Amino acid sequence: MSRTLVLNARQLVTLAGPNRGRMGPEMADVGVREGWAMLLDGDRIAVVGPESHLLAEAGDSEIVDAEGGVVTPGFVDAHTHLVFAGNRANEFEMRCAGRSYQEIAAAGGGIMATVRATRTASDAELLEAGARHADQMLRCGTTTIEAKSGYGLTVEHELRLLRTARDLGESGPWRVVGTCLGAHAVPPEFEGDRAGYVTMVTDELLPLAAPLCRYVDVFVEDRYFSHDDARRIAARAKALGLGVRLHADQLTYNGGAGLAAEIGAVTADHLEQTDEAGIAALLAGGVIPVLLPGSVFGLGLSRYPPARAMIEAGLPVVLATDFNPGSSPTPSLPMVMSLACLQMRMTPAEALTACTINAAHSLGLADEIGSLEPGKRAGFVVHDIGDWREIPYWFGANTVRTVWVGGRPA
Amino acid sequence: MSRTLVLNARQLVTLAGPNRGRMGPEMADVGVREGWAMLLDGDRIAVVGPESHLLAEAGDSEIVDAEGGVVTPGFVDAHTHLVFAGNRANEFEMRCAGRSYQEIAAAGGGIMATVRATRTASDAELLEAGARHADQMLRCGTTTIEAKSGYGLTVEHELRLLRTARDLGESGPWRVVGTCLGAHAVPPEFEGDRAGYVTMVTDELLPLAAPLCRYVDVFVEDRYFSHDDARRIAARAKALGLGVRLHADQLTYNGGAGLAAEIGAVTADHLEQTDEAGIAALLAGGVIPVLLPGSVFGLGLSRYPPARAMIEAGLPVVLATDFNPGSSPTPSLPMVMSLACLQMRMTPAEALTACTINAAHSLGLADEIGSLEPGKRAGFVVHDIGDWREIPYWFGANTVRTVWVGGRPA
Repeated sequence: MSRTLVLNARQLVTLAGPNRGRMGPEMADVGVREGWAMLLDGDRIAVVGPESHLLAEAGDSEIVDAEGGVVTPGFVDAHTHLVFAGNRANEFEMRCAGRSYQEIAAAGGGIMATVRATRTASDAELLEAGARHADQMLRCGTTTIEAKSGYGLTVEHELRLLRTARDLGESGPWRVVGTCLGAHAVPPEFEGDRAGYVTMVTDELLPLAAPLCRYVDVFVEDRYFSHDDARRIAARAKALGLGVRLHADQLTYNGGAGLAAEIGAVTADHLEQTDEAGIAALLAGGVIPVLLPGSVFGLGLSRYPPARAMIEAGLPVVLATDFNPGSSPTPSLPMVMSLACLQMRMTPAEALTACTINAAHSLGLADEIGSLEPGKRAGFVVHDIGDWREIPYWFGANTVRTVWVGGRPA
Repeated sequence: MSRTLVLNARQLVTLAGPNRGRMGPEMADVGVREGWAMLLDGDRIAVVGPESHLLAEAGDSEIVDAEGGVVTPGFVDAHTHLVFAGNRANEFEMRCAGRSYQEIAAAGGGIMATVRATRTASDAELLEAGARHADQMLRCGTTTIEAKSGYGLTVEHELRLLRTARDLGESGPWRVVGTCLGAHAVPPEFEGDRAGYVTMVTDELLPLAAPLCRYVDVFVEDRYFSHDDARRIAARAKALGLGVRLHADQLTYNGGAGLAAEIGAVTADHLEQTDEAGIAALLAGGVIPVLLPGSVFGLGLSRYPPARAMIEAGLPVVLATDFNPGSSPTPSLPMVMSLACLQMRMTPAEALTACTINAAHSLGLADEIGSLEPGKRAGFVVHDIGDWREIPYWFGANTVRTVWVGGRPA
């Protein structure tokens, strides 16, 4: 394999440490190294260390000049709704004029508007839309994307979304991790028969979806799915060898965090309404909180999840975009880091940890990605800045100069 | 002069209408045209109309294919602190950890930290920093930039900042409008003698600054400059033929809007704390409100200026970035539009009007820029979207594909 030497980084932000979620004070240490370089061997990182040492052992490696920029691991987005057709800029306009998300949904907008557009899109259109979304994320530094289905809501269309996500991961520079979110909403075909729809998910969809995904997710929320629905779906998912992620405590507080712990979910996502009891349940159950400030901002709300209390309790907090056409149309993890710093009082170090090694851990990939360490995959970002803290600081800007995946420029 | 035909835009968002600030309901009409094209003659727009008509009269024009994108006027940023050295990502980190802007300033940070860095930077370094900032803005669609001095705070260094801004405008694709903000803070050399510093501004700085700028600005705020200071500076500015812009009612309510009306200011900027009486004063005085939600967001605050009340009162609202290293390190007017839509309940149309024709009007340039109409300068943006409302919708993303200035790609 060819060897590549990455030189002349003003800072190498390694995130070095144990290959697991970093908890509490561990989140503050991002491993900033000045005067260090990185030697790649094919698609893997071989050595990370002082530039003078690496120059001595680099031999005839190809040289990559970081030109005084800052190098970080590729960002890991652990909660996205990557594949859908169309957008909902029209509803955005309605919300600006004061209509609520719930009102718009009740008027035929919301999730079902995207379900209609997605079902009628061709396979090629769906793949093209997903690639466009993934490319936007890549340009913002994201190299690994968790991708939920959930805009199909029939066996056929949910499987089509999961296949599209798989195909994107195989064809593009991105790594894509599929999650089956058949239980995103009850489709019109099952109106008034939520239990019947859940049975379709558990008995028909999940067995066929299992080869296409690693996780199953349920939108636990008033007027969507109940605790019992989630229990049924989680039991079936586990029997099929899949992990569980859960949309919990987003718009209303209904004990979603406790439910996540009870059913052995890997992650509980959103948690805007979670209280101290919920935090204690996450800790006791070993559930990873995935916080999604983009959807708070995108809905024009102001109650963000209690990140400080979670960090102080010792939870390995993750941040993700929640990229979706309704509540969080942002592809940018740097934007999410800015929101976390300014609205949730996370420090830049905590925010960066939450978007790299902790996010990788939540996807079961902490041995592979999330930090710049020997043996890990060579996915990294060169930023056009002199100090890593500028990533969340220049909000709404894009500090990314180049993104590398598998040892090559993406 | 060469002629250029811009074809195949999914939408041409013309902002056509009177060459003045659009008020109240006028702000809702951005003039979206589908199937239209634009013929440029050199650096000016010659014709805007249905594509079939323009094809007939285009002759041997050079063809520019907008590839189904959305075309808007170049954005106009009417309030920036464009030229400074360094950044304050370190203070950003302190603020995330809970320290207030005022605390950081009292500890030697804040404006004075940037003044020290700026004074010690060489002319070339300052020009390079300004060009880097302006280029970031350009990549977000901004073609005209108001640029305040204010990080020099001596006659020599304030003039150096204004010359740098002028040189940027002459050398780059951006149009730069200079504003002398000598009264940004009282420098250490005048500690305890604010009146003496104001005398230096009025008697020494302004006469030399006048050939380099169009406007004078004063930071009217507790512990910065008083109403009487502003009256003295405004009187001198007007005697020199300069317009007045005023930082007013940002952190505390002190009647800044009324003061702006009293002294005949062209704009009152910030206005987070302004009440109904202030709005009435702006209306009566013909003062244009320039709203800066980036600095509210960037300080982690939640009280945004009362845009809806201002629009409903009939004021021609302007939005700007307030680009600066302390409170608002964003170069992006689309980011500011997203904030305005989501946090201030402005509609996408009102936000776009506020960043184009209304901003141009506030700089006395509404005859030249701010809309796509015959006779205006050919500065425009091609966005990689199918619906203009996607500009604020995809927050934290960059929808800009190419920017044209003076009839050429920038």
